[in-house]
Amino acid sequence: MRKVSVFNSVSMDGYYTDANNDMRWAHEGGDDPEVMEFTKGNAQGTNALVFGRVTYEMMAAFWPTPEAAKQMPDVAKGMNDAPKYVFSRTLDKVTWSNSTLLKEDPAEAITRIKRMPGPDMTLLGSGTIVSQLAEAKLIDEVLLMVVPVVLGSGKSQFANVTGKPWWKMSRSKTFKNGRVFVAYGRIS
Amino acid sequence: MRKVSVFNSVSMDGYYTDANNDMRWAHEGGDDPEVMEFTKGNAQGTNALVFGRVTYEMMAAFWPTPEAAKQMPDVAKGMNDAPKYVFSRTLDKVTWSNSTLLKEDPAEAITRIKRMPGPDMTLLGSGTIVSQLAEAKLIDEVLLMVVPVVLGSGKSQFANVTGKPWWKMSRSKTFKNGRVFVAYGRIS
Repeated sequence: MRKVSVFNSVSMDGYYTDANNDMRWAHEGGDDPEVMEFTKGNAQGTNALVFGRVTYEMMAAFWPTPEAAKQMPDVAKGMNDAPKYVFSRTLDKVTWSNSTLLKEDPAEAITRIKRMPGPDMTLLGSGTIVSQLAEAKLIDEVLLMVVPVVLGSGKSQFANVTGKPWWKMSRSKTFKNGRVFVAYGRIS
Repeated sequence: MRKVSVFNSVSMDGYYTDANNDMRWAHEGGDDPEVMEFTKGNAQGTNALVFGRVTYEMMAAFWPTPEAAKQMPDVAKGMNDAPKYVFSRTLDKVTWSNSTLLKEDPAEAITRIKRMPGPDMTLLGSGTIVSQLAEAKLIDEVLLMVVPVVLGSGKSQFANVTGKPWWKMSRSKTFKNGRVFVAYGRIS
């Protein structure tokens, strides 16, 4: 069974985007060599990526560009090469390399794809999809990079998840730039 | 100048109470000897405590009771002995030992009290007061005990804080029961 993980930067108050759907705060002061190495390690994995439309459009507008190849060659290559699943009710096609557009209900689609042979899957951003998959207990691992900023308002990747699910904290790491990374595995 | 800190348990999605204003989830599976020792160490400090009305009423209904003295004698003694400031527009008096009722605007009152001689102050719960003091840049240290549960909805202690304030992560500690403690100091 293919594993599904989600990796997002979150603020001290738990949001993955600010009230304007902006994620730039997550990168401020983030150019710590230790964090860059960690991010690169994650991005070079052979995982497939899963996106909602909003995150897909943001990522697709950056990673295939020459600026991305120049700024972060290894991460850009990893992002462009990875198989990508994109959930959207409004898009007619997806043009970023190795992307597949999915029109099904996210929980149904991921249940189906988990059973197919293939690499594990990682969600980035895409809070609307994360919350639906968390509600359906399809997320096996939650990776949080906690950024030392208070946003005051924004979007939660677990919005309206019910039943108060508990997780098992499996590992954590602190970085010199104030980030705290924590990994949680699903219990039930 | 007296320092102001806030110490709250928060869920993986950043809430300090659930949607029903309940904080019981924060104690589930919390009876790890290491966490108990850590909590006791914090509660035995000589800090003054600062509360909003809701948290005050919850705490005042428990800590002075014989059950509290039996279950957690050291913490109960610390809580009962500590000087306590209580913000409420509706209460006429506060009867828990060593409590002072404050009717002023929280930011004005804390600005005044910070300049008076006396012990440092710690807020527990009291998100409405925390967010007002954070907005006024009166909180010097934020202590988070991150509980490995997703609440899906609830209250944030930093609700509507503006200006995206950044903090300096000063220390962290992981516990065997899955809690992650992180301390942040104010930068500006």
